Amino acid sequence: MKKMTLAIATAALMSAPAFAGDVEAGKAKSAMCAACHGAEGVSAIPMYPNLAGQKQAYLAKQLKDFRSGARKDPVMAPMAMGLSDADIDNLSAFYASLKP
Amino acid sequence: MKKMTLAIATAALMSAPAFAGDVEAGKAKSAMCAACHGAEGVSAIPMYPNLAGQKQAYLAKQLKDFRSGARKDPVMAPMAMGLSDADIDNLSAFYASLKP
Repeated sequence: MKKMTLAIATAALMSAPAFAGDVEAGKAKSAMCAACHGAEGVSAIPMYPNLAGQKQAYLAKQLKDFRSGARKDPVMAPMAMGLSDADIDNLSAFYASLKP
Repeated sequence: MKKMTLAIATAALMSAPAFAGDVEAGKAKSAMCAACHGAEGVSAIPMYPNLAGQKQAYLAKQLKDFRSGARKDPVMAPMAMGLSDADIDNLSAFYASLKP
């Protein structure tokens, strides 16, 4: 019985999507994002992208590019300025984990 | 009976998502996009964003920004360079119409 439980737990772990960040910490940090991108990562505004289910690595790169100025956006630049690398990993993991 | 058919047709038309571009023309133009973004707009590559179900207005702005250089990307710049405004409207409508 223990063996079977372990096998199931291992299978569940291996099939879980691998995100670099902490989904729960990202969710906690996402309040300021929700105003434009929606609480569940689906934007109500045509000019703002949906983030739910987007690729984690892509999201992290965009946030880093907004922070560094490599990608220029007057709204996103000040938002990203205050984010640490860990914040970015967590936020990206959170949005990647949501159902589109 | 004619009245009812008209009413149903009108309702169907009004509830259809309004895209500025031509979805079928966009699909025909999307072959070069599919290599990186997937045939159905879901990318197989972590660094490349999913496009399926993304906001049409957001997609169109990004393609115009890649074309003008306002958004800089060494891969997307040459892709966008050859696109007309109509191509951009059509491609954006196509990807926005896909199920994420």
